[in-house]
Amino acid sequence: MNGAESLVQTLVNNDLDVCFTNPGTSEMHFVASIGTNDKMRSILTLFEGVATGAADGYGRMLGKPACTLLHLGPGLSNGLANLHNARRAGSPIVNFIGDHATYHHRFDAPLTSDIHSLANPVSSWVKSSKDAKSLPADGVEAITASLMNSGQTATLVVPANCAWDESVEPLPGAEKPVPPAFVKEDIVTAAKRLSRGKQSLLMMSGNALSLEGLELADKIAQKTGAHLISSTFASRIRRGEGSVKVDRLGYFAEQAEQQLAGMEEMVVVGTKAPVAFFAYPGKSSEFTPEGCNVTTLVEPGHDIVGALQALVDELDANRFTPRRQTLQRPELMTGALTSDVVGCGVVKFMPDNAIIVDESATSGFGTYTLADNAPGNDWIFLTGGSIGFGLPNALGAAVACPDRKVICLHGDGGAMYTIQALWTMARENVDVLSIIFSNRKYMILQIELARVGAQTMNKKTLDMMDLTNPELDFVKMSEGMGVAATRATTAEEFNQQIEVAMQHKGPGLIEVVI
Amino acid sequence: MNGAESLVQTLVNNDLDVCFTNPGTSEMHFVASIGTNDKMRSILTLFEGVATGAADGYGRMLGKPACTLLHLGPGLSNGLANLHNARRAGSPIVNFIGDHATYHHRFDAPLTSDIHSLANPVSSWVKSSKDAKSLPADGVEAITASLMNSGQTATLVVPANCAWDESVEPLPGAEKPVPPAFVKEDIVTAAKRLSRGKQSLLMMSGNALSLEGLELADKIAQKTGAHLISSTFASRIRRGEGSVKVDRLGYFAEQAEQQLAGMEEMVVVGTKAPVAFFAYPGKSSEFTPEGCNVTTLVEPGHDIVGALQALVDELDANRFTPRRQTLQRPELMTGALTSDVVGCGVVKFMPDNAIIVDESATSGFGTYTLADNAPGNDWIFLTGGSIGFGLPNALGAAVACPDRKVICLHGDGGAMYTIQALWTMARENVDVLSIIFSNRKYMILQIELARVGAQTMNKKTLDMMDLTNPELDFVKMSEGMGVAATRATTAEEFNQQIEVAMQHKGPGLIEVVI
Repeated sequence: MNGAESLVQTLVNNDLDVCFTNPGTSEMHFVASIGTNDKMRSILTLFEGVATGAADGYGRMLGKPACTLLHLGPGLSNGLANLHNARRAGSPIVNFIGDHATYHHRFDAPLTSDIHSLANPVSSWVKSSKDAKSLPADGVEAITASLMNSGQTATLVVPANCAWDESVEPLPGAEKPVPPAFVKEDIVTAAKRLSRGKQSLLMMSGNALSLEGLELADKIAQKTGAHLISSTFASRIRRGEGSVKVDRLGYFAEQAEQQLAGMEEMVVVGTKAPVAFFAYPGKSSEFTPEGCNVTTLVEPGHDIVGALQALVDELDANRFTPRRQTLQRPELMTGALTSDVVGCGVVKFMPDNAIIVDESATSGFGTYTLADNAPGNDWIFLTGGSIGFGLPNALGAAVACPDRKVICLHGDGGAMYTIQALWTMARENVDVLSIIFSNRKYMILQIELARVGAQTMNKKTLDMMDLTNPELDFVKMSEGMGVAATRATTAEEFNQQIEVAMQHKGPGLIEVVI
Repeated sequence: MNGAESLVQTLVNNDLDVCFTNPGTSEMHFVASIGTNDKMRSILTLFEGVATGAADGYGRMLGKPACTLLHLGPGLSNGLANLHNARRAGSPIVNFIGDHATYHHRFDAPLTSDIHSLANPVSSWVKSSKDAKSLPADGVEAITASLMNSGQTATLVVPANCAWDESVEPLPGAEKPVPPAFVKEDIVTAAKRLSRGKQSLLMMSGNALSLEGLELADKIAQKTGAHLISSTFASRIRRGEGSVKVDRLGYFAEQAEQQLAGMEEMVVVGTKAPVAFFAYPGKSSEFTPEGCNVTTLVEPGHDIVGALQALVDELDANRFTPRRQTLQRPELMTGALTSDVVGCGVVKFMPDNAIIVDESATSGFGTYTLADNAPGNDWIFLTGGSIGFGLPNALGAAVACPDRKVICLHGDGGAMYTIQALWTMARENVDVLSIIFSNRKYMILQIELARVGAQTMNKKTLDMMDLTNPELDFVKMSEGMGVAATRATTAEEFNQQIEVAMQHKGPGLIEVVI
């Protein structure tokens, strides 16, 4: 049994059984070992950013890692942007990066590069295997690392000869790490702070935004009067019917500062005190109002739900019943096609327990707001600001949850970064409906251009944020990759198309021209 | 005058006047300063790998840098794969990576990452500007660095406040660095080695493959009987009518070893002794025959043409006239569409002084062989093995040389990595004809799978190298990005389409179904 065969069986023994890949020559033994192992599913992508983004979506939904299999430094490079998002999301991912045989490295062949230097910025754990016999144990170590702190990225570099040389027997399933415990004194402190009758809030992220976390937070809110606010870009939040409403912190400083105005006590839950996404000339980077105390209930990645339960206990708030959202389907709109029209159509027809992957930038607010009263759903955000996460994440979420509808809301500019995801959606026949908002510009940048005070709005400047000349045709591109697509230019067209699309099971795309 | 304005004018003063960009909020002042500077051309790309690959092609053709403008660590990440190729090609490139304001860094906002760790593996020079007043001088330093050693990558990280704060006056043009000199003793040694009457060869890369370098090499060959062999993946080589024929080292070990069999003296010129692209079980990583002496004439990036001239002088070979290739247009073929059919059609109709960008993998050999007797042309190779270089490089070469036809030969698998390049080709109306070989598989991997001895050829394994299910439609994708396209399925169809396409000026694409 060679190293690759023993590694792949070890992965399967450890409940890692999906591999998103774009392999090359140095991964051929790994590929062959997947090919002969019935338990490992392999999903081919045409670009590595699709593989890593899919692994992120998979990890966010299941809380366990898929693996990627990538081709040396350049293959990893193409996957880095979505690994950056995954790191910010706290997603469990194991990357296997094929490398030259150990003895081949000194020749500096064309594909040689410093893989560790590339991997470190996005990985919590990086290692290179030294021989075939170490490979199964390295694999277990990687999986264990990926599950620490509630989820993180582990990257194992696998030299080709470690894959093809004779190895040892596969290893059995190892014990899974549990999240680090909360600190009891932090619970007591937070309870005191929240009991003072001051204007207070819980600033929440991570598992605080799970159904269980939100229910506990709402008991705390009912007991103390604290507001519930989520991070702007959380990994995932449970929303809609049956869940608890939480306000989302605004992206722009003026929104966030308004939401936080007058607050005297901020308890942060699985996140930190909020800061601006970008700096702007003459504006503060921090959103916390002056004089507001900030108390940490529990660190990101630690036992957040446990900490919330402890706080409920400490506050004696177990008797409160969570105030759950009810279902309110909106009426369809007519006339011009806008973000609100899309929101009404999506929420009108979306099935129960959908997953919504949101890289809609400036175009998705209409849907976001209405989804508070949609059927129960999980909403996935762009955590790291690295564009092109949406389509791959939707693919991965659909692989993770094959019985749930995945709706991907995507800006046109962002969709072009990893448009190759459509092909894998078709190939795997996943139930993903992609809605592309074609406003034909990087709208967010035109807004930001003004906000940063770079006031040159001449044509040459605006052209650098313009997606006309030529206009992108997402219907043709989608069909070119095997995903059926339609284009909507009016509310009526969209309403008709979204109704059909929501009833269809399998990949589809609607280009919304707004 | 803010930092960005002074920097951009400084770049223009230093003959850097093309920027391939995909900007974000932290680059808005840079964007605005380009927008108000008439001398700086900005070219928008939809994905950063297109920007870096285009800068590579531009640098290879002109020997001077274009710049890229990319968005923090994730923007750089997306550009890394083609920067890897550029590093191997020795292309001059200046990357400007926007970053958070210096004072914003400590807040670890979502887009924060270790940019230097990402940049170092592909850059010969990396620096972060510390304030706006330093920016113009940092820009000059970056350009100078990019021109050292005949071309390399320089990366300057530009925090947003360095762009928007008040700066100093722009700097004037600085002196350009010259390549490091050759070593006189190496010339004498090489001359002695080549004069012993042994079986000998020049192994050549870099500027040795320019018209001037090849002419000098041929004089040496005529005088000493040495064979002329080029690296497998050189940056660029002058070929066709008027140039000198040189054999290309084979990619596969068995080809290379056959070419080198019996050689007793190898003189390496701007490269090193050849090694295998990958290691294979039980096979040698080095191609140099046992007992063959290896002598370095001149190091990569040094004064290669000067060294060749010195060797010609040392050998008293100036009297020889270079044996130039003559024009021989092939006859068109009929019937089934094959790599050879494409080669005949391309060489039959290609105009004089075309640029051929080759990421054809297994499908381009038919064209490569015939191009020795094509009209004079420059051939550009995939130097670093990082897939998806072809379309972006073709874009950059066309921007660099607007009066020359660029022909991009591309495998279907590789073309999907940076397919977004088509949109920028349409937008800039560059004269690039892309020929996509649709064999519907990663053919090279199916070959490599067998070669590495991973002999599992079952369906699940082969599916990981298969591009059917669904079949990609490059015509639709191309049209979706604004580039007119046709599909050829027979020799007759291709012959008709290639004749028309070669006469057309502007972007076009032919999907060749083979």
